[in-house]
Amino acid sequence: MRAGPSQEEIRRHNLGALLRHVHLSGPTSRAELTSRMGLNRSTIMALTADLTAAGLVREELPRQTRRAGRPSLVVRPESAKVYVFAFDVGVDRLVAARVGLGGVILDRREAVRRRGEFSLDEITGALAGFARQMHRKTRPDTTCVGAGAAISGRVSKGDGMVRLDPNLGHEVVPFGEELSRRLALGLPVAVGNDANLAALAEQSRGLGVGCHDLIFLHGDVGVGGGVIAEGRLLGGHQGYGGEVGHMVVNPGGRPCGCGARGCLEAEVGERALLEPTGRYGTRVGKEAVRAVVEAADMGDITAQEALMRVGDWLGVGVANLVNIFNPEIVVFGGMLREVYLGSAAQVRSRLATDALPASREHLRLRTSLLGDDATLMGAAELAFSHVLADPLEALARVSI
Amino acid sequence: MRAGPSQEEIRRHNLGALLRHVHLSGPTSRAELTSRMGLNRSTIMALTADLTAAGLVREELPRQTRRAGRPSLVVRPESAKVYVFAFDVGVDRLVAARVGLGGVILDRREAVRRRGEFSLDEITGALAGFARQMHRKTRPDTTCVGAGAAISGRVSKGDGMVRLDPNLGHEVVPFGEELSRRLALGLPVAVGNDANLAALAEQSRGLGVGCHDLIFLHGDVGVGGGVIAEGRLLGGHQGYGGEVGHMVVNPGGRPCGCGARGCLEAEVGERALLEPTGRYGTRVGKEAVRAVVEAADMGDITAQEALMRVGDWLGVGVANLVNIFNPEIVVFGGMLREVYLGSAAQVRSRLATDALPASREHLRLRTSLLGDDATLMGAAELAFSHVLADPLEALARVSI
Repeated sequence: MRAGPSQEEIRRHNLGALLRHVHLSGPTSRAELTSRMGLNRSTIMALTADLTAAGLVREELPRQTRRAGRPSLVVRPESAKVYVFAFDVGVDRLVAARVGLGGVILDRREAVRRRGEFSLDEITGALAGFARQMHRKTRPDTTCVGAGAAISGRVSKGDGMVRLDPNLGHEVVPFGEELSRRLALGLPVAVGNDANLAALAEQSRGLGVGCHDLIFLHGDVGVGGGVIAEGRLLGGHQGYGGEVGHMVVNPGGRPCGCGARGCLEAEVGERALLEPTGRYGTRVGKEAVRAVVEAADMGDITAQEALMRVGDWLGVGVANLVNIFNPEIVVFGGMLREVYLGSAAQVRSRLATDALPASREHLRLRTSLLGDDATLMGAAELAFSHVLADPLEALARVSI
Repeated sequence: MRAGPSQEEIRRHNLGALLRHVHLSGPTSRAELTSRMGLNRSTIMALTADLTAAGLVREELPRQTRRAGRPSLVVRPESAKVYVFAFDVGVDRLVAARVGLGGVILDRREAVRRRGEFSLDEITGALAGFARQMHRKTRPDTTCVGAGAAISGRVSKGDGMVRLDPNLGHEVVPFGEELSRRLALGLPVAVGNDANLAALAEQSRGLGVGCHDLIFLHGDVGVGGGVIAEGRLLGGHQGYGGEVGHMVVNPGGRPCGCGARGCLEAEVGERALLEPTGRYGTRVGKEAVRAVVEAADMGDITAQEALMRVGDWLGVGVANLVNIFNPEIVVFGGMLREVYLGSAAQVRSRLATDALPASREHLRLRTSLLGDDATLMGAAELAFSHVLADPLEALARVSI
């Protein structure tokens, strides 16, 4: 007979599971952990003692308790002491943050980014510089346990190489490797597609908690997608799954950076909204998008028409995804948050005609709870993932 | 510590795993099973002895062996003795088959089906009648271990209720329950969407063996899709995932039975091909589709134009799915097999412009290896699935 997992394997699995609970839910009483994990009280005590000894959690009395009798101790993640570096390469900004266990942003740095080109040197240089600044400010009793980065590009499952967006010529860059080298902290940098990471973050600690079928639509200059299907991120054969921005919704429509016409991102991206209102070029980015939505709200006909048109194509795209995936929630993030808020009626009207009644009957459309930090928080979750899988093993590898 | 699986649980799991090997790969030597399952020789012997005692497999000397020394015994599935009933409700035909362990069709019955309406009584009556005919012809030492049915409709995960195609008015019918009642063999009938089951069959014993990311496009009157993502069938929140036939590829295009316009099934379904050639109504079905493809091949301009147009839309749809799922293989089945063979150049040309280079670089486009029986074989796999999960438990429940 093949042997089952050893006692040591079970212990390591349970340590990870307990740490994940407090990482995602925050301070949790021993009693609550006992009930949620289906383990007995003495096992929870032993696991907590191990994690405490490793410096990952601490136990304390609850701030207040309404029950009579001895209160159950609360297990808290050591957010101030155990952290990761999270990076987000947005189209208009670079963000680096120090994120503590439990998902607390302890420190952050941002820089404006020049559009339209991708200089591996400049970008990794800037991000690594921010991280080193933040690292120098940390106290000696803190431990960095990982690093993760979100980037708008296709990340290969096999080697972690990043294929940049089509409008950057499909260039393939060793982004994680180069950022790790420049960080010079002896840490590898895990890299993920920004929309995929945003989907994971929204499911882990956003409005998708407890939801197994979620689609995150992230609008930047383009449109990225992250699909959680039955609890798992859709990766595809090489890891390039979820590129819903290049689903053609309007054949022969607006030209897309990828070479095709009428892709979702060409029809609902920033340019599709700004160009018809005469605003493209003078102002870009999220503020410009917000200005169009506000103008439409104030009665500007051109802005209203542009927003209706974009909302209509967004509706076609969402309806297609609803038929294909039968999701529970579709989340609009990045600049699509503004677009959706300004055109929700249009989107819903398209859904009513184009999505099958069975597939949309339980559907919820929502804007991201994590907002502009969804991609950054996703990068942090990616960086923490090896710690949550096997806390003691992960700590043993950390040398700084 | 949470306890690991018990020895008994491990044994049951291994029994299922061994049975699955011989069910999918056919007669397999003990030596091969030892190496494939990573278990030692005496364990394989013990498992085989249990399965033999249960009447699920038998051991025999290989027909021929090239090696010197004592040949390793070959383990064969008891295909003639252990079987399931598989049913397929196609648009133009009803099929019932007796399928032996190992995927051998032992007996089958077919009837032509009237299009355009769905009479639960008539359909379940005809299928149950076929099954009882076949059952009466079986020898007393045979055992029916399950029943499964493929149907062109959305099958609810929760209660197994079937929502019929939109052109049948989205009616909800208790198909499996009714078929089981009429079979009167004391067996539940597991029901699945036909394209989903075809995808599973193609992955289990067709050209998708060993492939984790596969899309099956099944053409009938409409177009259904089955998506295998990282080894698992895409179900969605309620089980309605994979309805790629209702992805809008041509907004404002041909009207679809679902009420929308320009759905993939409206643009590449049977009617879209036959109508422009003046053949719709007089002849329908696979033969009519094949006739158009042959006419195009012989130089008929109208047929060539119709096929090019349909191939172009099929290409748009496939390109979208490639961007969304990054699959390894897309399989064309049902009447889409003929359409793809007649328009492969058009499909590939669309893929070249509309699918991202990264997402299509390893893509293979293929026609179904299981052909017209893909959906039926998928129904058989569904019927066998509980036996492969826990052979002894499943046998214990069989009373006939």
